[in-house]
Amino acid sequence: MKILIIGGNGTIGRKVAHHFKNDNEVIIAGKTSGDLTVDISNSVSIKEMFEKTGKLDAIICIAGEAKWAEFNKLSEEDYYIGLKSKLMGQVNLVRIGRKYLNPNGSITLTTGVLADDPVVQTTSAALVNGGIHSFVKAVVLEIDNGLRVNVVSPDMVEDAYDKYKNAFPGHNPVPMSKVVNAYVKSVQGKINGQIIRVYA
Amino acid sequence: MKILIIGGNGTIGRKVAHHFKNDNEVIIAGKTSGDLTVDISNSVSIKEMFEKTGKLDAIICIAGEAKWAEFNKLSEEDYYIGLKSKLMGQVNLVRIGRKYLNPNGSITLTTGVLADDPVVQTTSAALVNGGIHSFVKAVVLEIDNGLRVNVVSPDMVEDAYDKYKNAFPGHNPVPMSKVVNAYVKSVQGKINGQIIRVYA
Repeated sequence: MKILIIGGNGTIGRKVAHHFKNDNEVIIAGKTSGDLTVDISNSVSIKEMFEKTGKLDAIICIAGEAKWAEFNKLSEEDYYIGLKSKLMGQVNLVRIGRKYLNPNGSITLTTGVLADDPVVQTTSAALVNGGIHSFVKAVVLEIDNGLRVNVVSPDMVEDAYDKYKNAFPGHNPVPMSKVVNAYVKSVQGKINGQIIRVYA
Repeated sequence: MKILIIGGNGTIGRKVAHHFKNDNEVIIAGKTSGDLTVDISNSVSIKEMFEKTGKLDAIICIAGEAKWAEFNKLSEEDYYIGLKSKLMGQVNLVRIGRKYLNPNGSITLTTGVLADDPVVQTTSAALVNGGIHSFVKAVVLEIDNGLRVNVVSPDMVEDAYDKYKNAFPGHNPVPMSKVVNAYVKSVQGKINGQIIRVYA
């Protein structure tokens, strides 16, 4: 398969890319590094990326930003960081990317535990994740050409434990192998419209 | 109690307003009619509304738009109709409205069944509803002054059955009395951070 991994150099992305490279042609896209660069908050940049990749069998997105801050300090504009990047960035990857997928191809998005089980300072980040979950359920009712769309929603991952352990009190770090397997299930399985929750 | 109902002249809103008027001071806000007018997609308009209401005990929002259209026809801009109105409109009602609530006051938002169980042409509407669900779970971890925030998520309501029956095949219309009770539970009960699903 020819697989595009957006965010393939990130904490989760590099493990996912490492796995798929065993048996597939993998293209890594990133904001500042990778085979291709892309700013997913900009739909023109997304189109330019797909013009360079050509036809694909699978698109994986493990990218997108949202601002973390106290609710009392988040401005209206702060919410739009997440809305434009992690939310509409991933919606646009489906809107635009579907035209570059071979029949029966797949798109796998990424959210996180905050959608179901948020922590403080995540009103914006939780909102974005929850929005993507409902979007995925809705889009599979209409997407054609045999395409499948799923989303992986991991809890705090093992490789980010030191960075996030204080932000996620009581959350159990998820082994990276389990996170990688969620992407494998989406790309190589036949499931569609699923929110693949990966909790330890 | 002094209760502001945004969208209090709508299909659901008028039944909710009728109920609360029995024992409370009710102010109705609407886009084009009501005691006050407000455009919830505009945070300046929201601030102006609250300057006119003064201090409140409860805020209920049963308003907000999102564009329904085939996934293949929804433009990026179309998604922003829902993001600015039903999504950020309701987020802004909490951000701004909390300053106008008396201690232990409540805010009740409204989404709908599409968050969990979408139908065709609702990628944008479902996304907005799902985003609000996760936002509500997150914001109650931080909101102060004893304030409570809940969201009512009804299936197709009885009074909109003729309008929506073809869009929601197999969905059971929810009796209006049951929908009204969800708002009563949020405003008069002590629950907090709940998604009050009202399904028949």
